[in-house]
Amino acid sequence: MKAKVHVTLKTGVLDPQGKAIGHALESLGFEGVGEVRQGKVIELDLAETDPDKARTQVGAMCEKLLANTVIENYDIDLEG
Amino acid sequence: MKAKVHVTLKTGVLDPQGKAIGHALESLGFEGVGEVRQGKVIELDLAETDPDKARTQVGAMCEKLLANTVIENYDIDLEG
Repeated sequence: MKAKVHVTLKTGVLDPQGKAIGHALESLGFEGVGEVRQGKVIELDLAETDPDKARTQVGAMCEKLLANTVIENYDIDLEG
Repeated sequence: MKAKVHVTLKTGVLDPQGKAIGHALESLGFEGVGEVRQGKVIELDLAETDPDKARTQVGAMCEKLLANTVIENYDIDLEG
Protein backbone atom coordinates (compact mmCIF):
# COMPACT_ATOMS: atom_id res chain seq x y z
CA MET A 1 0.00 0.00 0.00
CA LYS A 2 1.18 3.51 -0.80
CA ALA A 3 1.04 6.45 1.60
CA LYS A 4 1.42 10.10 0.72
CA VAL A 5 2.29 12.44 3.58
CA HIS A 6 1.87 16.19 3.16
CA VAL A 7 3.93 18.23 5.60
CA THR A 8 3.10 21.95 5.69
CA LEU A 9 4.11 24.78 7.98
CA LYS A 10 1.44 25.78 10.49
CA THR A 11 -0.42 29.03 9.88
CA GLY A 12 1.51 31.90 11.38
CA VAL A 13 4.92 30.25 11.02
CA LEU A 14 7.17 32.34 8.79
CA ASP A 15 7.94 30.66 5.45
CA PRO A 16 11.01 32.34 3.90
CA GLN A 17 11.19 29.79 1.07
CA GLY A 18 7.59 30.55 0.09
CA LYS A 19 8.32 34.28 0.26
CA ALA A 20 11.35 33.84 -2.02
CA ILE A 21 9.23 31.95 -4.56
CA GLY A 22 6.60 34.72 -4.41
CA HIS A 23 9.21 37.40 -5.11
CA ALA A 24 10.77 35.37 -7.92
CA LEU A 25 7.37 34.92 -9.57
CA GLU A 26 6.75 38.66 -9.31
CA SER A 27 10.10 39.51 -10.86
CA LEU A 28 9.33 37.07 -13.70
CA GLY A 29 6.25 39.19 -14.45
CA PHE A 30 3.50 36.99 -12.96
CA GLU A 31 0.75 39.21 -11.59
CA GLY A 32 -1.92 38.65 -8.96
CA VAL A 33 0.11 36.20 -6.88
CA GLY A 34 -0.67 36.54 -3.19
CA GLU A 35 0.74 34.39 -0.43
CA VAL A 36 2.99 31.49 -1.43
CA ARG A 37 3.83 28.66 0.95
CA GLN A 38 6.04 25.67 0.40
CA GLY A 39 5.68 22.26 1.98
CA LYS A 40 6.88 18.70 1.48
CA VAL A 41 5.30 15.52 0.15
CA ILE A 42 6.75 12.19 1.18
CA GLU A 43 5.64 9.09 -0.71
CA LEU A 44 6.12 5.77 1.05
CA ASP A 45 5.72 2.19 -0.18
CA LEU A 46 4.45 0.10 2.72
CA ALA A 47 4.30 -3.67 3.13
CA GLU A 48 1.28 -3.20 5.45
CA THR A 49 -2.02 -3.88 3.64
CA ASP A 50 -4.53 -2.97 6.38
CA PRO A 51 -5.48 0.74 5.97
CA ASP A 52 -6.03 1.32 9.71
CA LYS A 53 -2.69 -0.21 10.69
CA ALA A 54 -0.93 1.61 7.86
CA ARG A 55 -2.40 4.93 9.02
CA THR A 56 -1.26 4.28 12.59
CA GLN A 57 2.23 3.31 11.40
CA VAL A 58 2.58 6.38 9.16
CA GLY A 59 1.20 8.59 11.96
CA ALA A 60 3.99 7.33 14.23
CA MET A 61 6.57 8.00 11.48
CA CYS A 62 5.29 11.57 11.18
CA GLU A 63 5.45 12.17 14.93
CA LYS A 64 8.95 10.71 15.24
CA LEU A 65 10.66 11.79 12.04
CA LEU A 66 8.76 13.18 9.08
CA ALA A 67 7.23 16.30 10.63
CA ASN A 68 8.34 18.76 13.27
CA THR A 69 4.99 18.97 15.03
CA VAL A 70 5.94 22.18 16.84
CA ILE A 71 5.80 24.14 13.59
CA GLU A 72 4.40 21.72 11.00
CA ASN A 73 1.10 19.97 10.27
CA TYR A 74 0.89 16.64 8.51
CA ASP A 75 -1.80 14.96 6.52
CA ILE A 76 -1.81 11.29 5.47
CA ASP A 77 -3.38 9.93 2.26
CA LEU A 78 -3.44 6.19 1.68
CA GLU A 79 -3.76 4.65 -1.78
CA GLY A 80 -4.28 1.09 -3.01
CA MET B 1 -8.49 31.07 -6.08
CA LYS B 2 -5.93 28.75 -4.55
CA ALA B 3 -3.58 26.49 -6.48
CA LYS B 4 -1.60 23.58 -5.11
CA VAL B 5 1.37 22.44 -7.18
CA HIS B 6 2.98 19.06 -6.52
CA VAL B 7 6.52 18.77 -7.82
CA THR B 8 7.97 15.25 -7.77
CA LEU B 9 11.10 13.71 -9.22
CA LYS B 10 10.55 11.69 -12.39
CA THR B 11 10.70 7.89 -12.13
CA GLY B 12 14.29 6.76 -12.52
CA VAL B 13 15.80 9.95 -11.13
CA LEU B 14 17.85 9.21 -8.01
CA ASP B 15 16.30 10.66 -4.84
CA PRO B 16 18.98 10.78 -2.11
CA GLN B 17 16.69 12.67 0.28
CA GLY B 18 14.04 9.94 -0.04
CA LYS B 19 16.70 7.27 0.50
CA ALA B 20 17.92 9.06 3.65
CA ILE B 21 14.37 9.16 5.02
CA GLY B 22 13.98 5.44 4.25
CA HIS B 23 17.17 4.59 6.14
CA ALA B 24 16.22 6.80 9.07
CA LEU B 25 12.80 5.11 9.32
CA GLU B 26 14.50 1.72 9.27
CA SER B 27 16.93 2.67 12.02
CA LEU B 28 13.99 3.95 14.11
CA GLY B 29 12.57 0.43 13.91
CA PHE B 30 9.81 0.88 11.32
CA GLU B 31 9.43 -2.30 9.30
CA GLY B 32 8.07 -3.00 5.84
CA VAL B 33 8.99 0.38 4.37
CA GLY B 34 9.93 0.09 0.70
CA GLU B 35 10.81 2.95 -1.59
CA VAL B 36 10.55 6.47 -0.16
CA ARG B 37 10.49 9.54 -2.39
CA GLN B 38 10.31 13.17 -1.39
CA GLY B 39 8.75 15.99 -3.38
CA LYS B 40 7.52 19.54 -2.88
CA VAL B 41 4.11 21.15 -2.57
CA ILE B 42 3.74 24.82 -3.39
CA GLU B 43 0.52 26.58 -2.38
CA LEU B 44 -0.31 29.78 -4.23
CA ASP B 45 -3.01 32.40 -3.64
CA LEU B 46 -4.07 33.74 -7.03
CA ALA B 47 -6.11 36.84 -7.88
CA GLU B 48 -7.31 35.05 -11.06
CA THR B 49 -10.82 33.61 -10.64
CA ASP B 50 -11.24 31.78 -13.97
CA PRO B 51 -10.06 28.15 -13.53
CA ASP B 52 -8.81 27.77 -17.11
CA LYS B 53 -6.78 30.98 -17.00
CA ALA B 54 -5.46 30.11 -13.54
CA ARG B 55 -4.35 26.67 -14.76
CA THR B 56 -2.56 28.25 -17.75
CA GLN B 57 -0.87 30.82 -15.48
CA VAL B 58 0.27 28.23 -12.95
CA GLY B 59 1.46 25.95 -15.77
CA ALA B 60 3.67 28.78 -17.03
CA MET B 61 5.01 29.34 -13.47
CA CYS B 62 5.90 25.64 -13.25
CA GLU B 63 7.68 25.64 -16.61
CA LYS B 64 9.62 28.81 -15.80
CA LEU B 65 10.38 28.52 -12.11
CA LEU B 66 8.64 25.99 -9.89
CA ALA B 67 9.76 22.73 -11.52
CA ASN B 68 12.90 21.61 -13.28
CA THR B 69 11.12 19.80 -16.10
CA VAL B 70 14.24 17.85 -17.06
CA ILE B 71 14.06 15.80 -13.86
CA GLU B 72 10.74 16.75 -12.25
CA ASN B 73 7.03 16.31 -12.97
CA TYR B 74 4.41 18.73 -11.77
CA ASP B 75 0.73 18.42 -11.09
CA ILE B 76 -1.66 21.35 -10.54
CA ASP B 77 -4.76 21.26 -8.29
CA LEU B 78 -7.07 24.25 -8.19
CA GLU B 79 -9.40 24.95 -5.27
CA GLY B 80 -12.17 27.45 -4.75
